[in-house]
Amino acid sequence: MQPFRYHLPGTAPATLVALTDEKPLITLIEYDRESYERREISDIEECFAYRDNQTITWINIEGLGDLEGFKKLGAHYGLHPLALEDVLTIGQRPKFEEFEQHLFMLLQVVNLDAEGNVTFEQASIFVGKDYVVSIQQSRGNLFEPIRQRLAKGDGNGRKSHADYLAYAILDALVDYYFPVLEALGERIEEMEDQVLEKPSPELIHALHRYRRDLAQLRRASWPQREILTSMQRDETGIVQEGTKRYLRDCYDHTIQIMDIIESYRELTSSIMEIYLSAVSLRTNDIMRVLTVLSSIFLPLTFLVGVYGMNFAPEAGPWSMPELYWRWGYPVFWAVSLFIAALMLAIFKKNKWL
Amino acid sequence: MQPFRYHLPGTAPATLVALTDEKPLITLIEYDRESYERREISDIEECFAYRDNQTITWINIEGLGDLEGFKKLGAHYGLHPLALEDVLTIGQRPKFEEFEQHLFMLLQVVNLDAEGNVTFEQASIFVGKDYVVSIQQSRGNLFEPIRQRLAKGDGNGRKSHADYLAYAILDALVDYYFPVLEALGERIEEMEDQVLEKPSPELIHALHRYRRDLAQLRRASWPQREILTSMQRDETGIVQEGTKRYLRDCYDHTIQIMDIIESYRELTSSIMEIYLSAVSLRTNDIMRVLTVLSSIFLPLTFLVGVYGMNFAPEAGPWSMPELYWRWGYPVFWAVSLFIAALMLAIFKKNKWL
Amino acid sequence: MQPFRYHLPGTAPATLVALTDEKPLITLIEYDRESYERREISDIEECFAYRDNQTITWINIEGLGDLEGFKKLGAHYGLHPLALEDVLTIGQRPKFEEFEQHLFMLLQVVNLDAEGNVTFEQASIFVGKDYVVSIQQSRGNLFEPIRQRLAKGDGNGRKSHADYLAYAILDALVDYYFPVLEALGERIEEMEDQVLEKPSPELIHALHRYRRDLAQLRRASWPQREILTSMQRDETGIVQEGTKRYLRDCYDHTIQIMDIIESYRELTSSIMEIYLSAVSLRTNDIMRVLTVLSSIFLPLTFLVGVYGMNFAPEAGPWSMPELYWRWGYPVFWAVSLFIAALMLAIFKKNKWL
Amino acid sequence: MQPFRYHLPGTAPATLVALTDEKPLITLIEYDRESYERREISDIEECFAYRDNQTITWINIEGLGDLEGFKKLGAHYGLHPLALEDVLTIGQRPKFEEFEQHLFMLLQVVNLDAEGNVTFEQASIFVGKDYVVSIQQSRGNLFEPIRQRLAKGDGNGRKSHADYLAYAILDALVDYYFPVLEALGERIEEMEDQVLEKPSPELIHALHRYRRDLAQLRRASWPQREILTSMQRDETGIVQEGTKRYLRDCYDHTIQIMDIIESYRELTSSIMEIYLSAVSLRTNDIMRVLTVLSSIFLPLTFLVGVYGMNFAPEAGPWSMPELYWRWGYPVFWAVSLFIAALMLAIFKKNKWL
Amino acid sequence: MQPFRYHLPGTAPATLVALTDEKPLITLIEYDRESYERREISDIEECFAYRDNQTITWINIEGLGDLEGFKKLGAHYGLHPLALEDVLTIGQRPKFEEFEQHLFMLLQVVNLDAEGNVTFEQASIFVGKDYVVSIQQSRGNLFEPIRQRLAKGDGNGRKSHADYLAYAILDALVDYYFPVLEALGERIEEMEDQVLEKPSPELIHALHRYRRDLAQLRRASWPQREILTSMQRDETGIVQEGTKRYLRDCYDHTIQIMDIIESYRELTSSIMEIYLSAVSLRTNDIMRVLTVLSSIFLPLTFLVGVYGMNFAPEAGPWSMPELYWRWGYPVFWAVSLFIAALMLAIFKKNKWL
Repeated sequence: MQPFRYHLPGTAPATLVALTDEKPLITLIEYDRESYERREISDIEECFAYRDNQTITWINIEGLGDLEGFKKLGAHYGLHPLALEDVLTIGQRPKFEEFEQHLFMLLQVVNLDAEGNVTFEQASIFVGKDYVVSIQQSRGNLFEPIRQRLAKGDGNGRKSHADYLAYAILDALVDYYFPVLEALGERIEEMEDQVLEKPSPELIHALHRYRRDLAQLRRASWPQREILTSMQRDETGIVQEGTKRYLRDCYDHTIQIMDIIESYRELTSSIMEIYLSAVSLRTNDIMRVLTVLSSIFLPLTFLVGVYGMNFAPEAGPWSMPELYWRWGYPVFWAVSLFIAALMLAIFKKNKWL
Repeated sequence: MQPFRYHLPGTAPATLVALTDEKPLITLIEYDRESYERREISDIEECFAYRDNQTITWINIEGLGDLEGFKKLGAHYGLHPLALEDVLTIGQRPKFEEFEQHLFMLLQVVNLDAEGNVTFEQASIFVGKDYVVSIQQSRGNLFEPIRQRLAKGDGNGRKSHADYLAYAILDALVDYYFPVLEALGERIEEMEDQVLEKPSPELIHALHRYRRDLAQLRRASWPQREILTSMQRDETGIVQEGTKRYLRDCYDHTIQIMDIIESYRELTSSIMEIYLSAVSLRTNDIMRVLTVLSSIFLPLTFLVGVYGMNFAPEAGPWSMPELYWRWGYPVFWAVSLFIAALMLAIFKKNKWL
Repeated sequence: MQPFRYHLPGTAPATLVALTDEKPLITLIEYDRESYERREISDIEECFAYRDNQTITWINIEGLGDLEGFKKLGAHYGLHPLALEDVLTIGQRPKFEEFEQHLFMLLQVVNLDAEGNVTFEQASIFVGKDYVVSIQQSRGNLFEPIRQRLAKGDGNGRKSHADYLAYAILDALVDYYFPVLEALGERIEEMEDQVLEKPSPELIHALHRYRRDLAQLRRASWPQREILTSMQRDETGIVQEGTKRYLRDCYDHTIQIMDIIESYRELTSSIMEIYLSAVSLRTNDIMRVLTVLSSIFLPLTFLVGVYGMNFAPEAGPWSMPELYWRWGYPVFWAVSLFIAALMLAIFKKNKWL
Repeated sequence: MQPFRYHLPGTAPATLVALTDEKPLITLIEYDRESYERREISDIEECFAYRDNQTITWINIEGLGDLEGFKKLGAHYGLHPLALEDVLTIGQRPKFEEFEQHLFMLLQVVNLDAEGNVTFEQASIFVGKDYVVSIQQSRGNLFEPIRQRLAKGDGNGRKSHADYLAYAILDALVDYYFPVLEALGERIEEMEDQVLEKPSPELIHALHRYRRDLAQLRRASWPQREILTSMQRDETGIVQEGTKRYLRDCYDHTIQIMDIIESYRELTSSIMEIYLSAVSLRTNDIMRVLTVLSSIFLPLTFLVGVYGMNFAPEAGPWSMPELYWRWGYPVFWAVSLFIAALMLAIFKKNKWL
Repeated sequence: MQPFRYHLPGTAPATLVALTDEKPLITLIEYDRESYERREISDIEECFAYRDNQTITWINIEGLGDLEGFKKLGAHYGLHPLALEDVLTIGQRPKFEEFEQHLFMLLQVVNLDAEGNVTFEQASIFVGKDYVVSIQQSRGNLFEPIRQRLAKGDGNGRKSHADYLAYAILDALVDYYFPVLEALGERIEEMEDQVLEKPSPELIHALHRYRRDLAQLRRASWPQREILTSMQRDETGIVQEGTKRYLRDCYDHTIQIMDIIESYRELTSSIMEIYLSAVSLRTNDIMRVLTVLSSIFLPLTFLVGVYGMNFAPEAGPWSMPELYWRWGYPVFWAVSLFIAALMLAIFKKNKWL
């Protein structure tokens, strides 16, 4: 998730603070069975006229910059100040709140940035009887496919109520996890091959970064289940029976996402274990080579050292007589080769070679 | 499980996409207490005539290729589009859905391919008052034993309703886990012996592959419990009281499958721990050999080096007089052997040998 | 538990298969407050006459060989075919089933064989209003103490109903865990001492074998809790109020068994950790000895090598003049001893010695 | 949390013991929609006159020194002796108690001391219909921002009942976790960089100290969830409906705190794993260098030793004839370089270099 | 806990067996608001006269030796045989049982023996309308402070019913955990310092012994929560409303005990991890020293070996001409020092020094 933001302890609750000055992009869509109209508007107040007509109104706001606009919107639609505070405070845990006139839900949308890092963006949805207000943290056409389906008018979209639109938005937000998980999964599986070939602490570092990504994805997707369960249990009458089966389908997607995340986490653990066992076995191999070599050459080096000593021949017959034997030198070689062969045989027997 | 497949975010829900063009194999079985008829048919519409007769109709479709056929089937039998979407999207989590006119369940059937790898295949079942539609992901005679029992007409099969047929199919699909687990178990137990004899990172890699298989099997079999529990709680009247005890028996099988998987997972962990402890003890042994050898030969090599020095005798009486002693050389050997024996004794005392 | 057995996928449910041809040993006990009669009978049909009398009938069958007998028994007492299938299929998970006329429970009895290995044996109990049928997997006088108590007629045994007899049998089966756990516990504690003295991979292997035994014991005893809980909740009227407190006592025993198993598992983990830390510290010690020795002798060996070089004195005054100094050789020894002492002092300071 | 304090076993329950003699600082605030009055008072009895007036009374006591005062307060407001004992016994687990006339809650406030260590301070709150008594363990202006908001009179503060004031205090206490977690998080992330650059046991020690801090934070924040859940379920009528949504917002903060703590704990585990894998790979690298060097020089040292032997030329033609060959010395160098090159080639091939 | 004891499988339930012959010490206390009387009695039957008077009777039995006495007590007070069996069988899991006329609870009291080892002692309590029977496993004045409070007559003690006395006993038994945990905590924290200074397998062994103590404490204190929860839910009327709040306070103590145990367990894990990482880093350091030394001296030793060879000068101009150069020896030293410096520079660059 995003780095957490908080108000100083003791700050009044429901304090609204704008993160940015950037003007948000507001898109208004009005539709019913017969008609579909889409307008880009610049002042949120332009939307208010559409509130009480017969069509379904979808206000999509991209960007959190317009503090005054949000206050007006909240006053007009009767949105709770605490909900608005959540909308404007990024890094929130996904949540669902049931108010008298509307439902409020907040999610984290995942995406990959240009460098392939997982990014989180907060999205909030207010759903009333015949309106939906969706608020994205920053500009981005997350909902373009839904608009196109509405414009074309095929499928259930135009025939249904605001709750179905809210479902369609939720479903799209949830489905954004799949391509991200696919990309992450590919990279983790690549690592599985590398770890046996060239283990390095950098690789482990990267592995842990992916693991952290997965932990964040889990933390962000886990509460989505509660959102979808709560919506299915909705008793305000905003969510209609027919939509609930679609919500269950969406719920199944979040379960599948959790399953995939869990299997990737297990995979990272496996890679870690393979890494550690590969390194320890490699250390073992290295030590074995060193020990075998030393075992052969340490005695031989001692032996050549013996016959490099300078005990004087004039000291007497016991002073290194070997040096003066006719076959001394060849015998030395024979003994050396025998010692080396013996060592090798011993190691062979103990399966060190 | 299979690699997960997903629709692009924002795709309309219940979008049906065919994975393949291959024509599915459709088998129609009509039976009641007295009669049994089996036909291979080529067009799904041929089945529709049998829907409203008094016999029980079992349509088995092998292969997901015929998109149009599925649409017609869905329209004729009133199957929910979301359920049909699940049928056609492979890699789904096993699930159970209760509709007004029928029950829908989806499972993952496990198998071993020619190389001994665990494979997953999706199977879906629609059960109504007097019909069962079973859909396999690909061709394969998974249900041949059931057909033979129906043809013979002994046992409960022909006397019971469609729910008992559905149970028989479910039971067969669940039981396919046993031979797979048996094969996997044998291979894992083989590893237990190998790990002490010749540990290698490849072995650990293989171990983790089995572990992944087990994790996939667990993920695929875990939701089967929910399916069987849900069927026992069924309130549509499709599942009859007498069948519920059979479903509980099948439920016990899934619990046993989970138990076996869990015990194999513990076994892989044990093998991993044995491996690591064996490697670390082996490193220890190797180091001990190296250290003992070095401890003996390093001092001796120094000693022979001393008497290989060329301090000139003419420099005076303190210049290496040992070289000119009558017993110098034998004394050197005595000292050398004493040092070696001393070292060995010390190591013996410290239990290094 | 025992290696699992399964029917081929698609086999008809409740298919009875005999594991063995061995004729089972059937003991019939008839008792009430006043009388007690015990007979060994050879054909199960001899028991059927006693079914409807006023006394309590206890049929104990040792061995699963008589397929026909079981079928007759099932038909006469109205035992469900699925329950009979469970009785005959060994390696089942302990379970409890409530039927209209009787209760069915299946347990795993543990024992130690001659080599001290943990063995599992399946035992099944059918309890009706005034009869108990107990079936053991193989011959063995598991219930002899209960028969003797019944014969003597003291305690509650003869005064109570069939449910109390069933409780007594269950209690005995559960209590068989205690001596097995005691033996296992002693062996594991022995290992705790050995692991510090002479660690070996064989020891770890044995440790894991015990761990597997414990896992099997846990798997076999865990579902016993459910059996005892289910019996206490029994609503068929077979289990009487007075007996339920005894069942709770038996339930406490299973909890205690789980506690003991858990504490032994923790002990095996501790031993594993102690082993690994002991090995790694030992490797450390060995390396330290090697390094200290090398640090002392590598410089000295270089030094003696220097004065073993053959730079010719006739080359000039700078060609190894030390060799011709009067105190050259004693100074060499002084320098050598100083280097060795210096090294030792450095290691002492760094707490390597 | 703080080191735990306890009464000797057998001490009478609700025994009040003063930890310190220091006189507490008592602040009395009286307010309603129109008025706001703040007074520092020296004797707790001065407050009692305000109990039954129409305004809301907030008594804030900083310090636990005045045992008599607490007894009087308890007697006047009917506070339960057990609750007062909890107030005076520091190191308590956060708790919530519902009494007839008031609610009681106890929390641990976290802070960083001058050295950056996490400190815990106990705070207790009694909430009645129109009064709040808040008790801090020691002096400190934890609630200054709340007082200022009350003095200004904007927001909901002055318009609401005592329950809203209690919420504001709770909210402030909960929010004190955020800056502490932020500081802790920064330090842990710093470690992540250091662990690859210069691992040291001191670093691991510090890491574990942070881990312990996190465990204490978790233990202190976990029961806050129960407090907030219990308050939302309050049935005494003290907590009003409108306040409950604010309490849910505060509840979400505690959930977020738990999430942050959990993610930091995972991060410390990751750092630990990276550390261990870095150290083991580094050991591996070191060993490889040692082995490669030894493999090259051990054979060469043996070779030069051979030709440093003193087998006498007068012993015969087989006594080291190489020494007298014209190209003996150059050939020696050629052989030496060949051996070294061969060794390097072998290591290159095995990817050790 | 204590080593578990069990009856042989098949033993009749509720079989009473005396562990010892030692005569128990029986103390009888009779009290009401006005009076307090304490007597040491030798035969349990002397107590029976007091059963039906108006005062509250507290019989405290220290020691389990008097089998006959327990049987009489059971018969007179109507204690269930199973409960009496539990009283006499040591090593029981703490439990709570509700009987018609009385409540039964069994706990494990912890203590430290003279050597500082954690010991467990079983204590049982029967509570009726106006009597309490408390039974300790062995002699010891566990309840002296309670008797003194009763004798003094201040506090709630004398004014309350038997349930409050039972609470006071329970509270004392629970509070005995605190000094034990304090002592254990101090020792574990001492280890934290030692582990970095002088790691040893003995230390790890001791650490695991503490860990086992903690596991036993957890197992013994965990079920106390259930006892206290069950007593608060008591519906026999024995436990009065006013006492329930005191029981909740005692419940909070058990939660705090669990928290402390948990934090100590985490501490032991931390110490273990610090130990392992310290050892592995230390091995690393040792290897680095060895490798650096070898890297410097192996080439130099080869070099001095070269010039210690005896290639004869008479073999020709290519036979070791260096030995006869005027600056041969000084150049050798220069080259040696250069090689050593080069090696040191390389290691410096790679941060090995």
